[in-house]
Amino acid sequence: MAYYIVGIDLGGTKIASALLDTDLSIVKNDTVRTDNSRGPEGVADQMAESVKRLTEGLGREAVLGVGVASAGLVEPGTGKVLYSPNLDWRDVPLRDMLSERLGMEEVYVDNDVNMAALGELHFGAGQGARHMICVFVGTGIGSGIVIDGHLYAGANGFAGEVGHTTIDWDGPPCPSGNPGCWESYASGTAMARRAREALERGETSILKDMVGGDLAQLRVETIAEADRDGDALARRILAETGEYLGAGLSNLVNTLNPELIVMGGGVIRGVPQLFDLAEASMRRRSLPDAVAAVRTARAHFGREAGVIGAGVLVKLAGKP
Amino acid sequence: MAYYIVGIDLGGTKIASALLDTDLSIVKNDTVRTDNSRGPEGVADQMAESVKRLTEGLGREAVLGVGVASAGLVEPGTGKVLYSPNLDWRDVPLRDMLSERLGMEEVYVDNDVNMAALGELHFGAGQGARHMICVFVGTGIGSGIVIDGHLYAGANGFAGEVGHTTIDWDGPPCPSGNPGCWESYASGTAMARRAREALERGETSILKDMVGGDLAQLRVETIAEADRDGDALARRILAETGEYLGAGLSNLVNTLNPELIVMGGGVIRGVPQLFDLAEASMRRRSLPDAVAAVRTARAHFGREAGVIGAGVLVKLAGKP
Repeated sequence: MAYYIVGIDLGGTKIASALLDTDLSIVKNDTVRTDNSRGPEGVADQMAESVKRLTEGLGREAVLGVGVASAGLVEPGTGKVLYSPNLDWRDVPLRDMLSERLGMEEVYVDNDVNMAALGELHFGAGQGARHMICVFVGTGIGSGIVIDGHLYAGANGFAGEVGHTTIDWDGPPCPSGNPGCWESYASGTAMARRAREALERGETSILKDMVGGDLAQLRVETIAEADRDGDALARRILAETGEYLGAGLSNLVNTLNPELIVMGGGVIRGVPQLFDLAEASMRRRSLPDAVAAVRTARAHFGREAGVIGAGVLVKLAGKP
Repeated sequence: MAYYIVGIDLGGTKIASALLDTDLSIVKNDTVRTDNSRGPEGVADQMAESVKRLTEGLGREAVLGVGVASAGLVEPGTGKVLYSPNLDWRDVPLRDMLSERLGMEEVYVDNDVNMAALGELHFGAGQGARHMICVFVGTGIGSGIVIDGHLYAGANGFAGEVGHTTIDWDGPPCPSGNPGCWESYASGTAMARRAREALERGETSILKDMVGGDLAQLRVETIAEADRDGDALARRILAETGEYLGAGLSNLVNTLNPELIVMGGGVIRGVPQLFDLAEASMRRRSLPDAVAAVRTARAHFGREAGVIGAGVLVKLAGKP
């Protein structure tokens, strides 16, 4: 008989769920907009309904478990969401809430970035790596750190919050309060902001026409396309962003001397040029002996990283 | 019968050796100026002579082994010094050279900063810690990282080179070549340089009189003393250095979320005020949830950290 796993990627805007086979190939998808208006109870209801739609017609014994990759801080072991900035949740026992709704014990919840790193480690670009850092660049920058072949959580689960490391000790303040955070320089949000600011200052660029004059429509993909067309502003923004990305990456290299750095996330996917620019800056800025040991790779999984990672969580939980 | 260990701290200017009992208390010291004029062979001769002086009159069986804490990069396991910037050595099989001179198998060589962290972990401020970072501030800044109760070396032994992490992506270049390195802002060298520059610009301060007008004599201890006397320049330099130290420490907190940060080294010993200034800056700059788990402590061992750490190396090597 065939066995299945349900992976759920719980985000602030959508709940992306998938039925996976035991090789973690996606069999079926189910995506709904997150409705947080009734708080955690309502969102848990939505998640349970997705699971029921995906597993309809399958016998209970065919479903090995449900994994949830959640934004924010999740207590290891209990699957309690201690803090989710996107959903504005504190201390939500999501694992237990979902387990009760599904009448199923095999429910596992963990942090989405860590799950994406786990997916890369076991089934993606990081297979066989001992010391690896997966850096995901999107609206912010997050990372999952693998030490000795295992996810490293830190003292209370906050390891890998590299988006808030400082690359400019007296730089502009990040919403986190800290001046000069890496992500306030090198995230997709920061790229788009710098492009808009330059256009508002009156810099000449095809970017303005590309968004029909509506600067709110400017995306990192727009900048990537303008760069390919030789636009000077787009080129400068990519060069700067590569430089900033490399500064933060070199901090990871000099501190942790990993053998592998995997780069992924929406910005690296949408602006593929950034990977090489970031790597070049990282190699130039790191101690030569330390960076000599470091390989780099693009993340194997894309948007599906969360649901795949959640599936890995179920697979690993089933192991002795 | 009583057993002993010899610990050697090999530096660019001096070779500090000590006879230790099995509790790692210092029984006898032997310190000589490093004479690198004949290269590694000559230095190994000096080290062997120190060991012979320290163990004179003891039976061979009373000496459990010799540990060497060396500056630079040491290959784990083989005790080969791959690179020592202070001594300008490359690929020196120091363990074997010393083992041959002493006619003793039980010779162990490892990196001095890692050895100092090992000393703190097993016999100092870090006893019982699971995830700990020992940061040593001196002429540069180095660290030893402990993950899950063990020293973390990284892919090729370069983990913990935090002095060359960036806190200012377009800052002034460090001798390493990287702009804005932490140690080019927050080391003792940087503190003394900023004080001298301010005095050369004509700033009023008691520092000038304290060194009899000879700015080359200005030490971090001079600045600490002037601060205690209320000198405004000294106070400003300490405040800035605390701020810089905190920026780099917060990068470690947000990346590794340790439970303990130990601060030591000549600058923290010579300028005790810096500990609190650095901690305050670290707490203000780190993610609140991550730093909530972090305790701080002053290093237990001082100048003797190297020889004690070398002794720990021998003790651990003797364990199954």
